[in-house]
Amino acid sequence: MAAYFDTLVRVRYAETDQMGVVYHSNYFIYFEIGRTEYIRNAGLDYKKMEIEDDCFFVVASASIRYIRPARYDDVLRIRTRVTESSRRTARIGYEIFNDANEELLATGETYHVFCDHTGRPRALPEEHRKYFEAVGPPEPGPAMTS
Amino acid sequence: MAAYFDTLVRVRYAETDQMGVVYHSNYFIYFEIGRTEYIRNAGLDYKKMEIEDDCFFVVASASIRYIRPARYDDVLRIRTRVTESSRRTARIGYEIFNDANEELLATGETYHVFCDHTGRPRALPEEHRKYFEAVGPPEPGPAMTS
Amino acid sequence: MAAYFDTLVRVRYAETDQMGVVYHSNYFIYFEIGRTEYIRNAGLDYKKMEIEDDCFFVVASASIRYIRPARYDDVLRIRTRVTESSRRTARIGYEIFNDANEELLATGETYHVFCDHTGRPRALPEEHRKYFEAVGPPEPGPAMTS
Amino acid sequence: MAAYFDTLVRVRYAETDQMGVVYHSNYFIYFEIGRTEYIRNAGLDYKKMEIEDDCFFVVASASIRYIRPARYDDVLRIRTRVTESSRRTARIGYEIFNDANEELLATGETYHVFCDHTGRPRALPEEHRKYFEAVGPPEPGPAMTS
Repeated sequence: MAAYFDTLVRVRYAETDQMGVVYHSNYFIYFEIGRTEYIRNAGLDYKKMEIEDDCFFVVASASIRYIRPARYDDVLRIRTRVTESSRRTARIGYEIFNDANEELLATGETYHVFCDHTGRPRALPEEHRKYFEAVGPPEPGPAMTS
Repeated sequence: MAAYFDTLVRVRYAETDQMGVVYHSNYFIYFEIGRTEYIRNAGLDYKKMEIEDDCFFVVASASIRYIRPARYDDVLRIRTRVTESSRRTARIGYEIFNDANEELLATGETYHVFCDHTGRPRALPEEHRKYFEAVGPPEPGPAMTS
Repeated sequence: MAAYFDTLVRVRYAETDQMGVVYHSNYFIYFEIGRTEYIRNAGLDYKKMEIEDDCFFVVASASIRYIRPARYDDVLRIRTRVTESSRRTARIGYEIFNDANEELLATGETYHVFCDHTGRPRALPEEHRKYFEAVGPPEPGPAMTS
Repeated sequence: MAAYFDTLVRVRYAETDQMGVVYHSNYFIYFEIGRTEYIRNAGLDYKKMEIEDDCFFVVASASIRYIRPARYDDVLRIRTRVTESSRRTARIGYEIFNDANEELLATGETYHVFCDHTGRPRALPEEHRKYFEAVGPPEPGPAMTS
């Protein structure tokens, strides 16, 4: 299992605000794209998991640290990894880079509880556990300390 | 039945874009607030209509004309009226004013088909028809031609 | 100049609403992605046009017809073309297809006025006119009548 | 100075997702409404502070814990307080309640750095400091532990 997965997303005009930068809550939408593509890359279709397994990946808490602003039309690289997981929960870590210059723009994490469609916690189906195997926290490296 | 209903909404920072004005697609969210409050004022709770009557107010088409920009923290007055209706459809008209100076910022309309939760067209329940009685198109007046 | 340009976009969870489909105002964000990529493909960077030429592509009116719903994780194909243009204005037409089955989900258009950063109308710089050459309305074909 | 300020906001259809609840990133927009109204209630117009004082309230980090879901048409009560502040920074705490039954739905905080329009940190103007006086963390009480 790869330690992380990178997804590219281009900043939309609608995502900017009057300060001329990406409005801060939109980073959590980028995080969601990151984890969806992480899971897809690992071999699991999140849409199917909701429908076929009645298993939802509910956000229980979230946090973010903003380092440099993202701007309209920037291509962002969302780096996603599972930093912790159990039968009923998973913690996902993210770094967002400006893809053009490798600058780190934000880091964050989301903590999830697996639930059924009524919102009641449940265990992740046995056959899906491999997709949420934790790889630990990010290790410092050139791209991440830039 | 009143000819129209006015709802106030304050522009959020998140709704602006880097031009320093409200991003254009957000006006359709204001329209939705306008029609929800129009219906509530008439005596119908849209949330209940979805749940208890399995009747959804699906948008089939929409249009808007932008006249002057709305800006962060502006208080907008959304004027809503039913301009046409039948057992299965309704057409809603909107004007958005800057509440501080009565300037007209945008006009638009949405056309709706009543559907059940599967998206199949259905008739509006008989007892709700009075809430969607058409009052005709807006008549020109001081506030609207400013 | 190609008659149209196609851009792919995947529906985000954040773009759905409690009916289980894409919330209707989000299609105008897809339209914006479509025209940005149309212009980029033609050779013009919209971001640069704003900054270097003080030329903004302001939306003066917009309309849409919804045909079939788009859903979470669907890949949409946004087909964009310039249907009319002058020194000071341009009309853009869009069709949104479900990329998996070629079904037409929505059609619409936006009408634009070129403005400077203060919002005052201005002529499009001479050297950019070729990027906004009109190709006329869409011709009916298999993909569009499906 | 009051220990906190409460603002009411009604959940919009556009803010829900296909799980039938408010999409998680939208709570940060509610937080922003909470702090804007907190400041306005204290006597400061944030819009003017940006324009007249070239002082922006930039989000440097943010976190949230989700407790119970908010749903379409719910009236939310956003309780906001300044939990820490200095000449250059401020920490704001939030609780979001369902106004109808006093249930606590989410708690969170945002940490801010005062910046000029170029994004460079600066001191908050002396005459505005009173508006950001810290009142300490929330004290447990019936509404907040429900």
